[in-house]
This record gives sequence, structure tokens and C-alpha cells, in this order.
Amino acid sequence: MPPIVTIENRDARGPFLIVCEHASNHFPPRYGDLGLDAAARQAHIAWDPGALALARGLARRLGAPLVAAGISRLIYDLNRPPQAPGAMARESEIYRIPGNAALSVAERQARTEAIYLPFHGALHAEIARRLAAGARPVIVTVHSFTPVWFGQRRSVELGIIHDADPAYAEAVWAQAREATGLDCRLNEPYSAADGVTHTLRLQATPYGLDNVMLEIRNDLLADAAAVEAMADRLAPVLPAALERIGAGKRKAMV
Amino acid sequence: MPPIVTIENRDARGPFLIVCEHASNHFPPRYGDLGLDAAARQAHIAWDPGALALARGLARRLGAPLVAAGISRLIYDLNRPPQAPGAMARESEIYRIPGNAALSVAERQARTEAIYLPFHGALHAEIARRLAAGARPVIVTVHSFTPVWFGQRRSVELGIIHDADPAYAEAVWAQAREATGLDCRLNEPYSAADGVTHTLRLQATPYGLDNVMLEIRNDLLADAAAVEAMADRLAPVLPAALERIGAGKRKAMV
Repeated sequence: MPPIVTIENRDARGPFLIVCEHASNHFPPRYGDLGLDAAARQAHIAWDPGALALARGLARRLGAPLVAAGISRLIYDLNRPPQAPGAMARESEIYRIPGNAALSVAERQARTEAIYLPFHGALHAEIARRLAAGARPVIVTVHSFTPVWFGQRRSVELGIIHDADPAYAEAVWAQAREATGLDCRLNEPYSAADGVTHTLRLQATPYGLDNVMLEIRNDLLADAAAVEAMADRLAPVLPAALERIGAGKRKAMV
Repeated sequence: MPPIVTIENRDARGPFLIVCEHASNHFPPRYGDLGLDAAARQAHIAWDPGALALARGLARRLGAPLVAAGISRLIYDLNRPPQAPGAMARESEIYRIPGNAALSVAERQARTEAIYLPFHGALHAEIARRLAAGARPVIVTVHSFTPVWFGQRRSVELGIIHDADPAYAEAVWAQAREATGLDCRLNEPYSAADGVTHTLRLQATPYGLDNVMLEIRNDLLADAAAVEAMADRLAPVLPAALERIGAGKRKAMV
């Protein structure tokens, strides 16, 4: 069984730290299948298809550590706080999740303790270790989204999402529009108002670290060649965006 | 040796969660005495005298859990992030801390991993467990400050300090001025700009939890009777301030 959290390139020294909360559609036996058939457990509701491969491609190109989850977001969505309905969702897009329909408080607490706390504790430790050494890691979370949602086709290809501190995300957006040729949108297909920036808010904002959430349409990550091509396109954007905002701003919030 | 963190009244069900980061002036043998004599290790630079006793008095009166540290703030100041100079201070007020003068990166990381991460992990777990049960704990950190600082006498008796969300702290201030007879000041003798609100920022703000930092002048906590009298005075202020801001605001940031 894969662990709840894995850390790759732990000793990498680049300026970025990559996070992939929805890397896996693994359902550990103790949680059963939540009443879902195999197709639903493979669908975008269970994970972000292609996101882990892209995150690895970015981490390799950028010399960055990668913190990735090893469990389906339907068991616990690691980009949601424990009180959010979406942390252990009863429904997601057009699917119902029978195994989450009537969770007791004890079961919500047990999943929080078994999944949420260890994942975010491990990520916190990686960040704190770097802060103690005088580094200021830029936190980049990597997600994918479905091209068709509630029957509507989405034209956005790359979503760039921020929480309370938009400076770095806006620079990524500007750079990506110039350099990637992708349909790039700021705070689409989701934004902080949809509750999707929990990891940024929990792990980056308290330390004043630059941060951004990337959302890539998953039909652009359909196979290994597509993922590598996307990693080639996106990797240079992240340091170039850092250059845009300059080192002065990055030190202001120490 | 006392543990890095202790949790008292863990199953208490009241609306508050009390935190005391500077509860102890314990120096575990592995860290030595940092080159300080016994008087310095008893002084306000090493801990917040009276804060733990007051925090316990408040926790008992309010039916609140208490998360308290078991180590001197000079070894690691749990209300500071790992990159802050004050996390492992080289000097504090009129004192130099020889044992912190030339810490290596490895030693800064080791203290971060041995002290900062376990304390904040334990506090995070207490908060997350309550959130998973649908509760919204109000985070109250309890500190004390020295009546004479750099030779200047301070007249403020009760300081009420906020970070990014001032609503609850302002209500505590208004209530305390009406009800306690103390010289109450908002954001004195310190404020968020002095970097003293790390615990609030790390543990309360990401969840939109109401929060406040209390600073009591330590000559008002000089013995057990004084502490009990202060707890009697302050305990009713906290729920009354919650009434002032009303339940509507508290649910707005879920």
C-alpha cells in the first residue's frame, strides 16, 4: 500500500517546493471502495489524472522537492480543511459517493488524523526545515481539471490560482500568457472563493512565502509524451515569474 | 524531563482553546544552559512568568483545553517561525544568549524538528480534531510581559493583540475595558508588526477561526492568589466578547 505521503528529491536545493495533493486514486482496503464502481474510481473525481506525472516533470526540471499524496481525494481531499463538506465529499460533480453519505464524527476525525494531519505535517516539516536554513521556498501546487464539467466543455487550458497574496500567481499568469501559447486564465476554472486554496493558505501564507496553484486541463496530460511536453512548456515559466517580482518583494515578509 | 508539549483538559467541550507557548523555563540537559546564569534563566526572557498558571485558571473556568509548551523560549520560541531571528534569539532585551550566538544551520534545523514541529503539530491536531467534529474553536494565546523593559516602566496592564482578523480581539478589548478595570490596550505592548502573532497566523487564520493574543503584565501574576484573581477577572470577558461579535460572523469563513 502506498504511504499517505511521499517526498521525492528531498534534498533538492532549487527555490521551488512542488505539492501534489490529488496525485493518487488509491483506495486503501480499510476504506473500501466507498460504493463506487471502477470507472468512478478512475474518474477525475477520485484524483487529478496526469498531475503527479506533471509534478514530477516539473520537480526534475526545477531541482525541486515534491510532496505527493498516496490516497484518493474522495477518502480525504488534502486541499480542504476538516470542516469543509468537500474534505470527505458526499457528491462530486455528477457522482454521488455512497461511502461518504453518512460519516460519523468519529469517522471524520479518524480520517483527519490518519490522512490530513500526516500529509500536512510532512509538508510543514519540509517547509520548516528550509526556513530554518534561511531558504524561502516558493510553494507550487499542481492540479488537473476535467475538460467537461456538468456537460459543459471548458476552453481554459491552464488555470493559475492565488489566495491572499496574488503577486507571484499574477507574475506566473503574465509569463505563461507570453511564453506558453496556452489559454491561460487567472483564478479559473476555480478560485479561492471556491475553497480550493487550502494548502496555500495553511502552508505558504503564514510564512509569507510566494505561492501559486496550477490547474492543467487533463486532456493535455493524456499520455507520457504529452506530460513531458507540458513540463517542458511550464517549467521555465516558474523561475521567469520569480524574476518578474524580484528578490526584494520576496524578503519583505520575513 | 517535561515533554515539549502538554495538553490539559483535552476533552473539554467549551468554545475556547487556550495556548501557552511560553509556559516553561525548562532547559533540557541536551541544550545546556546556553551560557546563562540562574537569574537569567528565571527572568522574563526565558519564559512568561505566571502565564501558565493564568492559562490553567482560564481553561478551568471556561471548560477549555490547554496546549502548553515544556521548554524555554530561549531554546526555541514557539511563537516565532523558524526563519525569525527571535526563534533562537542571540539577544533578548538587555541579555545576550551566548549559547545561541553561533548556531549552525544543522542546529537550527534540529531545534525546529525537535521543538517547533511537535508543538505546532500537537496544537494543529487538537484544532483539526475539533473542526472535523463541526466545532469552531476560538484560539486564545496567553502571555505575560515584564513591567520594566529597557529600563522603562510600562503602564499597560492587559494587552490584546490581533493578526489579520481583528474582530474578536477588538471585542475582547472593548469588553475588557468595560468589565475589568485594567489598563487595557489594543496591540500593546507588542503588535503583529513585531512578529509576535505567529501562532495565530499559523493555527487560527488558515481556518478563519476567531483568535486573540492576551498579554498580562507579570507583576499582576506574582503569586497564586493574584493569578486566581486575574483569572476571575478575565475569564468572563472571553465569552462576553464572543457574544458581542455574534454567531453570524463566526460562520462566515467556513
